[in-house]
Amino acid sequence: MIKKALFSCCALAVFAASPAFAQTPAGLPTPDSIVAASSAEEWTEIAPEDVLVMELAPDRDGNERRVVIQLMPAPFSQPWVENIRALARDHWWDETSVYRVVDNWVAQWGDVSEEKPLPEGMVSPDAEYGTYAGNHLPFALGISGRKQQLIERIEGMMVFASQSTFVENAFFQGFPIAGEAGLDQIPSWPMHCYGSVGVARDLAPDTGTGAELYAVIGQAPRQLDRNIAVIGRVIEGMEHLSTLKRGTGDAGVYEDRDEDTAIISVRLASEIPNPPSYEYLSSDSYSFSRYVTLRANRKDEFYQISARGVDICNVQVPVRAIEAEISE
Amino acid sequence: MIKKALFSCCALAVFAASPAFAQTPAGLPTPDSIVAASSAEEWTEIAPEDVLVMELAPDRDGNERRVVIQLMPAPFSQPWVENIRALARDHWWDETSVYRVVDNWVAQWGDVSEEKPLPEGMVSPDAEYGTYAGNHLPFALGISGRKQQLIERIEGMMVFASQSTFVENAFFQGFPIAGEAGLDQIPSWPMHCYGSVGVARDLAPDTGTGAELYAVIGQAPRQLDRNIAVIGRVIEGMEHLSTLKRGTGDAGVYEDRDEDTAIISVRLASEIPNPPSYEYLSSDSYSFSRYVTLRANRKDEFYQISARGVDICNVQVPVRAIEAEISE
Repeated sequence: MIKKALFSCCALAVFAASPAFAQTPAGLPTPDSIVAASSAEEWTEIAPEDVLVMELAPDRDGNERRVVIQLMPAPFSQPWVENIRALARDHWWDETSVYRVVDNWVAQWGDVSEEKPLPEGMVSPDAEYGTYAGNHLPFALGISGRKQQLIERIEGMMVFASQSTFVENAFFQGFPIAGEAGLDQIPSWPMHCYGSVGVARDLAPDTGTGAELYAVIGQAPRQLDRNIAVIGRVIEGMEHLSTLKRGTGDAGVYEDRDEDTAIISVRLASEIPNPPSYEYLSSDSYSFSRYVTLRANRKDEFYQISARGVDICNVQVPVRAIEAEISE
Repeated sequence: MIKKALFSCCALAVFAASPAFAQTPAGLPTPDSIVAASSAEEWTEIAPEDVLVMELAPDRDGNERRVVIQLMPAPFSQPWVENIRALARDHWWDETSVYRVVDNWVAQWGDVSEEKPLPEGMVSPDAEYGTYAGNHLPFALGISGRKQQLIERIEGMMVFASQSTFVENAFFQGFPIAGEAGLDQIPSWPMHCYGSVGVARDLAPDTGTGAELYAVIGQAPRQLDRNIAVIGRVIEGMEHLSTLKRGTGDAGVYEDRDEDTAIISVRLASEIPNPPSYEYLSSDSYSFSRYVTLRANRKDEFYQISARGVDICNVQVPVRAIEAEISE
């Protein structure tokens, strides 16, 4: 039963669920077979102070809802990331809520009353959304304005969809990063993809403090790039945000506060007992380059025509939980 | 209250909800102000035989859930579209269900038992997913491999993200269409974007009948283009699919049948009394070209840095319900 369902546009999910089927019956590699065959050394553990654990109120059936966010690595968006760590240490989000959900757009949380005092001295950073400090970073699989160099550096061809002819893309420490091409000085910035977490703000020049956050729950809204601070991405429990009822008030804010989803707590993994821990497939690893190449060039018993390219927001960086060791 | 929410990455939704605010306070045009200012002649009514109305079982609070799909216009995917019209006329989907939901991927429906007989003689079409017949269509705002011609034809610059260097994009009768560039004969095919509806199938060369369908509920999975028949898109009630609980069985199929969402009925609008009717902003209209230009070049009190480009799947073609006239 469900045979049709199994192979219906779902090879990724099927094989992800079944490592034994890491290759298609014909033995052709798939993105998941590459991940399954990667070596332990190719994975990078995410530091506990970069992991934000948000516990939402249980759902109507009493199921727990944990959403885990990986914070953006330096040099990107660090003034907001620092605010967010301070807010978590302050337990500031406890008893706040998810109060706005717009289909194919965002789920947003924080203090809907706008009356909760921020920690003393916390303000919206006076900072840029992108950085020139990225110029000398070890980008992997893509580099601003120098596609030829990229293609020579990796096995197979890698063609990312650019947002426009002016923008090129790359990965850095597992995050998708965009850069401006054709300039001597090349600014770069974190992208808005599905699952990206950003800092809600009022009209510019306000940049937001980080107290009000949102996660992207639809097609990558790349027009927000460089207009909002991207501070991380959801690495577990995304479905607890993406399945929330859409709001019917102005801008998708719930009309009644009893529609809100209560936030029980938000903590840094470094501050809780028995925290979950995670690792991502290093974006400068051989297996990651193979994985992206296959995301761009599907060809197996299900995929008959290869796209010969992939949008960088359609390359989900593999992340997995690290099982805790049982100590006696 | 909620001021912060109103302007947090949401100008689109705000102004869509409030035509009175069709322009930003500074008077700068936005995509929604362009739509609000469009003339009635620029909209095209969708024929009732191209509208599929799916009634899901009410939600847990007793709210009705109607999902409306616009079928793909000729010459694209017509063998499957014909099957789908026949299935609707046969009331084939009544008492079937939505049985598979995968986050950032698809919600899928049909007969999970795989035992329901199809209408007599219905088979998976022996047809191509793309067509050369598109060569002579009046594409708007983009044409395969002739970007220069495009740019000269419209006001402002329009740069779509290509999936790869080989693919160009365009709109046709309100649908996003991709084409292969650099060839004398240029095949074109409908795209997988958020809300696109496609035909689930087993391994190739099976193409699926159209009885099992799915809607995309995440980042555009363009790797499915030309590997699956795209037969339409959701134009109303998308949230009734995108908010469904994600499945935990193989490939995201629900493990228990009581997790399924029952389908009460699927009908062509041409076959039901008092059908809803819709119109879309014609993709060859002046207002549509202005709308896309602004989607690619946001610049107002909220958006400070324009992306100078937009992914075609991030250009939601405006669709609106036509209010029924009250007759005495």
